[in-house]
Formats: sequence, structure tokens, C-alpha cells
Amino acid sequence: MPGDRVVCLLDQRLLPRAEHYELLSRWEQVAEAIQTLAVRGAPAIGIAAAYGLVLGAGALAEKDAAAFVAGFREIGETLRKTRPTAVNLAWAAQRMETAAAAIAGQPGAARTLALAKEARAIHAEDVAACRRMGQLGADLLPSGVNVLTHCNAGALATGGYGSALGVVRALRSAHKLGRVFATETRPLLQGARLTAWELMRDGVNVTLVADSVAATLMQRGEVSAVVVGADRLARNGDVANKIGTYSLACLAAAHNLPLVVAAPWSTVDLEAATGDAIPIEMRTSDEVTHVRVGDDSVHSAPDGVRTFNPAFDVTPARLVHAIVTERGVVRPSKGETLDSLKP
Amino acid sequence: MPGDRVVCLLDQRLLPRAEHYELLSRWEQVAEAIQTLAVRGAPAIGIAAAYGLVLGAGALAEKDAAAFVAGFREIGETLRKTRPTAVNLAWAAQRMETAAAAIAGQPGAARTLALAKEARAIHAEDVAACRRMGQLGADLLPSGVNVLTHCNAGALATGGYGSALGVVRALRSAHKLGRVFATETRPLLQGARLTAWELMRDGVNVTLVADSVAATLMQRGEVSAVVVGADRLARNGDVANKIGTYSLACLAAAHNLPLVVAAPWSTVDLEAATGDAIPIEMRTSDEVTHVRVGDDSVHSAPDGVRTFNPAFDVTPARLVHAIVTERGVVRPSKGETLDSLKP
Repeated sequence: MPGDRVVCLLDQRLLPRAEHYELLSRWEQVAEAIQTLAVRGAPAIGIAAAYGLVLGAGALAEKDAAAFVAGFREIGETLRKTRPTAVNLAWAAQRMETAAAAIAGQPGAARTLALAKEARAIHAEDVAACRRMGQLGADLLPSGVNVLTHCNAGALATGGYGSALGVVRALRSAHKLGRVFATETRPLLQGARLTAWELMRDGVNVTLVADSVAATLMQRGEVSAVVVGADRLARNGDVANKIGTYSLACLAAAHNLPLVVAAPWSTVDLEAATGDAIPIEMRTSDEVTHVRVGDDSVHSAPDGVRTFNPAFDVTPARLVHAIVTERGVVRPSKGETLDSLKP
Repeated sequence: MPGDRVVCLLDQRLLPRAEHYELLSRWEQVAEAIQTLAVRGAPAIGIAAAYGLVLGAGALAEKDAAAFVAGFREIGETLRKTRPTAVNLAWAAQRMETAAAAIAGQPGAARTLALAKEARAIHAEDVAACRRMGQLGADLLPSGVNVLTHCNAGALATGGYGSALGVVRALRSAHKLGRVFATETRPLLQGARLTAWELMRDGVNVTLVADSVAATLMQRGEVSAVVVGADRLARNGDVANKIGTYSLACLAAAHNLPLVVAAPWSTVDLEAATGDAIPIEMRTSDEVTHVRVGDDSVHSAPDGVRTFNPAFDVTPARLVHAIVTERGVVRPSKGETLDSLKP
């Protein structure tokens, strides 16, 4: 029965303090979980949206084909709007809508079953993509590499295994990994809360630093590569990713270190010729004026102070040594573009 | 009577939440205030140490000349050790010790009086130095300049008026100031807690950003100069300052923006040929794994995570457009050194 279906989500806002799983039975709850960052990470929110659409299909089980297609598209539109920068959300919604249109004539229960299969395929393909990216990324880097990573592009941000942290895991499996440095990633501290937690659970040697310490680590020769994920990749290799990525890209260039971006093909937006076409989500002032973890909060700035709080930045292709996708590797700094990997 | 003397210190750890003044009557309390960052900022801790030594002289009032000089030097040594990087502390202690040696033969009350006068002179000279630096720094910058500053090099960090924020104040007085961007400055958030507070009280248009947003502001053309203070200046123009300064120096260079350092002559260490000779204070892990403001605290990272938490970094002279002291301006990136300003 459609009513039996639930989406089980680890609430990432509570990490590392509590490991709390939410069981969601309505697609609106999935939309809220994406919007409020209970689930975050470009590939992970694409997968969450796909599962959310399965719940949506359940809610539309009684509808005829035309009403089903229209209602399903409306739910997809709502999910797309929850976060504007990560293109995986739109990609997953589009793929689910295409699948829905193809089976719209079937009975409600059969439609839901077919769409659940499609969502699970999106999920499984993402895990496989992460494993493949991990392998390709690890092949690019020398033995003993010390990796600096930003935000969380790990198992928590994907279907599993991770994009940037997939590269870290593959390096480790190949006995090529030196140390890992994780930037805490203000304002939302995904590096401190999620990356450090995820890597420590795997027994990886991780050192947590304030964001502004990255330059000093590079100056001291303690970093050999910067490896990050992405929220949207423009055709020319411009990279939209967590705020602070562009800063690390400039610093990597100043210290002659490679910046490697690992992201599944679902993150590529071939419609965006360059990063100028990528919308950047602006977030509220309180993320800057407060520090929050779970229910705990510290007010760290004067009331009423003006802030500027973009969630993402755009790193120009010229600063990107390599983009690793499951389809292969491109070298944006050498002028290679992502359409060369187009299927 | 010596017992009547108190040092009045604003406890900066509680800002911007509370404006609490501590009245300290023993030199050991001043040492503790410096060590625990109740007072911070290189010039301010030099001044605090000078006043602390006046309290120390009071405690030694009954001693004969030799015991007084020895005891006074011992107190100076203890104060010097509270924080290793800022040279102003050693500079102020040395100046007070020289003054103490010269008047050691006088009665106890007269010694304390003379040393109180010396401490007040150190304080007053710092304020005058800040005003002069403000003028010289403002003269270097064009009209309408948008300043990005890091940490707090303001009135709170000096005897008054500020070094970097002295330049901001002088720009404003000259009607040349555009906008000011303050980086929050993790881990201790001096930018959020102190700089934003201090500038808002003065009615300056200040925008608070996470540290990693500085690069994006530069990319968008919203910053025209980076202006910071210093904790110690090597002879060649290498600059030890709050962790994150080197990062901003690299970013300024990548965006063709000038980095201007404002610091009083008491910050210059001509004995240090380069930054390699400057000791860098390492601080504890809990500053990275927690965010604290006053009594409020958020635990933001997994228990037991490894951290790397230097309080300062060293920016090489080649990245420093200008160092502004009350004695004049040098251009380290053009090979000018600080000994050219030596009296």
C-alpha cells in the first residue's frame, strides 16, 4: 500500500551530537527536509527528491493518467524550488517525471511501484558513480597525498561513499592516503559536524581547522591537493560549490597545488555555458550572527549587523585542475569542457 | 597609597553581549586577564602589562632598591610569558623595567607614582600613534575605498582609536570611506564580536561575513583594500598577525588589491630579521571544536577530533603593499625594510 512507504533520513542538522533518523511518509515532509537542510549535499538532495516523488505518486494513486502527470509535475516543481543552486534536484525531478509520464496509464499501485524502482535506481547509480569517481580521482593523485577538503562531500552528501570523500576513501584503499585536513566550513560547520564525524568513524586520520587556516597549512607544505565536491558544474568547467571553495581555489593556485573537483554527472548543467548562468542561493543573516548545532545556539555578533551570506561561490575553470565524474575526467584549466564527456 | 590603585579593564570576552568592566588591584590579575584574553590586541596588552607593572611596583613598595629591581623584573618576566607572539608585551615590560631601574633608589610611593606616569605615557603615546597611523594610512588610499578588515585592530585592541580601524576612522573623517567588511575571524570571532560592535557604535557602515566569503567579495569587485593590524613585524616587513591574515594576503594579491598593515612602532621587532624568527602561539583544541561567547558555548565537532590551531600566521613581505607606523610608511613588497624608519 502507498501508505506503507516511508523515506528514512538521517537528520544531519543534529550531527555529530545525535544520530536521529526521521521517517517521512508525505512528500511535503521531504521538501521541508531539503529546505531546512535536514538532508544536504547536491547528490543526496537529488536522491531525497526522487524518493519524495515516490511518496507523491502514492498520494496521487487514485488519479487518472492526466491528473497524475499534472500533479506529479507540480510536486516536482515544488521540490525543485527548495534549493536553487544544486542542479541534481532538477535532474532527479526531471528523470522521475519522464518515468512517471511513461507509466501514467497504469493503475496507481503499479505506478508507485515503478517509480520506487526508478528512485532506487537513481540512488544505486549515485553510489556506483561515487565508487567510480573515487577510483578515477585517486588515480590522479600521488602516493602519500595530504588532502584538504571543504564542507562535506561525503557519504552523507551522496547516496553513499561520497564524491570528494569517495576520492579520499579510494586513496585509502589504495594505501596512497597521507593525512586529511577538514575545514570547519562556516557558517553551517559541515566540515566540523559532518566530514570530521564521517572520517573519524572510518578511522581516517583527519585534522579539523578553522577555514582561514587552510592557507597556513599550504604555506607549511602540509597539503598536497585540495579535493572538493560540487553543487553545479557549468559546461566550461566553472564550479559552483560551498562558499569558501573559490577562496581555496585561489590559495591552491598561489601554492601550486591541484584543485580536484569530484561530482557525479547529475551535477553537470550543460545548459549553463559558464558559472554566470548558475543561480547562487543567498541565506539568512542569522546563520552568520549565530552558531547553531542542533538545539544549541550562540549569538556571536551585535544585533542588527548587516551581513552577506551566499551559500555557494563559483570557481572559474582556469583554477580547476580536474573535474572527476563517473564518465571520466576533464581538465578545465587546460581548456577541456564537460561536453566532451557527453554520452 | 598603592592599595588604592586599580586597573580598569573592559572584559572583551563578553562582548557584544555585555559591557562588563573588571577592576584589578593585583598584577597577577592583569597577567591572568592577558592570558585569558579578557584584554587582547597587541598594543592593548602592552598597555595592560605596563599598568600591571604599576600594581607590581605597589606590591614591592617596602623593598629596598635591589630587591625592588629584581622583583619588578620577575613580574615583567611573568607578564612577558603570558602571550608569546605580540612583541608589544615585551616592549612595554622592557620600557617599564628601564624606568624602574632609574628610580629604584627613591621611596616606594614615589617609585609607584613615577611608574604610573610612565604607564600613562605608554598609553597616551599609543593613542597618538594610532591617530598618526590613521592619517598616514588614509592618505595611501583613494576616495570611496571599500575596506576589508580581519580580527579586531580597533580601539579595543589599542589604547584607543585603533590601528587598522584607526585608518578606517581617519578615512571616514576625510569623507573617503566607502563600505567596511569585517570577517568574523574564527575561532574566537573577534571580527563578529568586537569589530562589528565597535564600528556599529561609531555609525560606520559595516557588513559582517564568514571568513571564507572574503574571496567572493574580492571576485565581485566589492573590496578595494585589505587593512589589518599586526602582532609583530619583522625587520624585512614580514607580518605576524591573527590567523587568516596570510590567507587574505594571498587573496588580495590574486585580485590585485593592496594589503595595508597598520601597527605602532612598539610592534616592530628589529631583532627578528624575518618572520621565521617570530614565535607563533599555538592554542587549545577546544577553540576549534567549540564556539564560545561569554558563558554560551556550542560544541560543533566530534569528541576527540585532532585540530591544528595557531593563533597567528606570518605574511611574507612580498605580499605587503604598505606597513604604516607612526614613524612613517614602508613598502615591503618593494623591498623597503623597517630599519629605514629607525629613530
